[in-house]
Amino acid sequence: MTDVVGVGNALLDIVVHTTQEFPAAHGFVHGTATMVDEKTSDDLYARVGAATEVSGGSAANTVVGLASFGASAGYIGRVADDQLGEVFVHDLRASGVRFDVAPADDGASSGRCIVMVTPDAQRTMCTYLGASAELAPVDIDEQMITESRILYLEGYLWDEPPAKEAMRRAISVAQDHGVRVAFTLSDPFCVERHRSEFLVLVEESVDVLFANEHEIIALYEVADFEQAVAAVRGHCDTAALTRSALGSVVLDDSEIVTVAPAHVGEVVDTTGAGDQYAAGFLYGLLRGADASECGRLGSIAAAEVITHLGARPALSLAELVRR
Amino acid sequence: MTDVVGVGNALLDIVVHTTQEFPAAHGFVHGTATMVDEKTSDDLYARVGAATEVSGGSAANTVVGLASFGASAGYIGRVADDQLGEVFVHDLRASGVRFDVAPADDGASSGRCIVMVTPDAQRTMCTYLGASAELAPVDIDEQMITESRILYLEGYLWDEPPAKEAMRRAISVAQDHGVRVAFTLSDPFCVERHRSEFLVLVEESVDVLFANEHEIIALYEVADFEQAVAAVRGHCDTAALTRSALGSVVLDDSEIVTVAPAHVGEVVDTTGAGDQYAAGFLYGLLRGADASECGRLGSIAAAEVITHLGARPALSLAELVRR
Repeated sequence: MTDVVGVGNALLDIVVHTTQEFPAAHGFVHGTATMVDEKTSDDLYARVGAATEVSGGSAANTVVGLASFGASAGYIGRVADDQLGEVFVHDLRASGVRFDVAPADDGASSGRCIVMVTPDAQRTMCTYLGASAELAPVDIDEQMITESRILYLEGYLWDEPPAKEAMRRAISVAQDHGVRVAFTLSDPFCVERHRSEFLVLVEESVDVLFANEHEIIALYEVADFEQAVAAVRGHCDTAALTRSALGSVVLDDSEIVTVAPAHVGEVVDTTGAGDQYAAGFLYGLLRGADASECGRLGSIAAAEVITHLGARPALSLAELVRR
Repeated sequence: MTDVVGVGNALLDIVVHTTQEFPAAHGFVHGTATMVDEKTSDDLYARVGAATEVSGGSAANTVVGLASFGASAGYIGRVADDQLGEVFVHDLRASGVRFDVAPADDGASSGRCIVMVTPDAQRTMCTYLGASAELAPVDIDEQMITESRILYLEGYLWDEPPAKEAMRRAISVAQDHGVRVAFTLSDPFCVERHRSEFLVLVEESVDVLFANEHEIIALYEVADFEQAVAAVRGHCDTAALTRSALGSVVLDDSEIVTVAPAHVGEVVDTTGAGDQYAAGFLYGLLRGADASECGRLGSIAAAEVITHLGARPALSLAELVRR
């Protein structure tokens, strides 16, 4: 039995510090994610400085956060049978997350994401999906989903047709078995690429929506955050909208709650803030917490992850909450 | 032209936080390095938590530190033609270090070192040498050495016969061309394994010796540090002996200087302290600094590296010294 099953792009993060100007000078939009081919990834790698490698992937980060809270978590994603894939699988399992998808022994190498951390602690991502893009409906472990309470999906998966089909399969299984479906919009450009489909998805299939300010504005093509909040009301059961230093706004059937950000020390690297917010929020839902408490748990997890390099918790989130 | 050429075991560090008891409970001696076979490395990896991967290798860390000071540096070592090898080579070159040895396309995979960081910020290392142990005399770029001013070697290389022959070749080339030979004892157990050969080496071939307190005591089989200092006098031209929080003692023909440690913030991970001390010290020698100033530069570099994870500088050491 797993409380939450995450489905996402299995990626190793190659974290590198750059100047504030570097991402734009190389064609990347500050604070966003760009999908590239292997050659572009290799070319960028040759231009960046010495790096640190840590396991990443948005939904994978979230399920690791859930495990750190003490929830049982599983993951569905695809790596290749290579050294970077081994690192990804090791870290996931060592974090207590169940992972059963066999690594692909042919095709592309394991996916990787060059994370450019600028002096403002923001991250700009250059992602080569590699083997992660080969996720297909056959990889969806239906039993793991039917035995879980929440299915969590990342919008990034929508970029590859077989992965999209895998998502649809997972959603259909979840809906048939009363498993709640949670979904993150992932990135404003990802929203631009798939807006019409995302609108239908949110309306018909998503019980819990995660988005940051830029993503939710992009989804509804509105002018500001207030208009986005108005648009999302009634569109899905629960929405958790994050606003960086402004905290978050949580909407459900009955109320709109503004959640203050948790106290943060020095911000080192904002990578994973949204992923860990989702982990805390979902952990709250599992415990039957109200909107305000779910948001508070999300804020605590997000605050922890931005004080260090990498997108996964360095401390036990369960212990952090106990304090 | 390179100022310093380093020769060493090319390793990727797999950095993991453990409890204080974990290393001993798995058969490792706290604060030391153990050489293991691939299976033992894999077994330990399966038992440790989620990790961070960074390029390492003692002499490689030192030449990266030298490059960070602004010196020109080269490296001789061996990785396999695999993903971990690519990471090692990328990081070395991205740090401004010249590296020309072609990756091995058969034989063992790239070497890796599982670095267990305990709550006291000490590191205990489990090293699988892999391809790095295949360094052979043919890999020694004689021209790079003859055109350099200092050849820097790590004691760890003495564990593998072909690597030892490569070291002897490198030393012979250096001595024939008036290139100074610097050598680090690396680890107390490494000293135990090769004491008689190290004593001859230090007497006949080493111009600058680096050792920490435990290593120099092990080399001369004496009871305490003071006796070790007495033993090393006259045994080699210059010796820099590090004592963790007590700073270091530098001996040359004319004097014995005690160098205070540099001011340190919170100590996070002592991995690389000795490697970076050597970098600062050698940078001082290149600039014609006296013993005291060489030690001071070593202390500054060591102080920087212990405030963060990983064995290579996170800041420009040249800039740190300018401040």
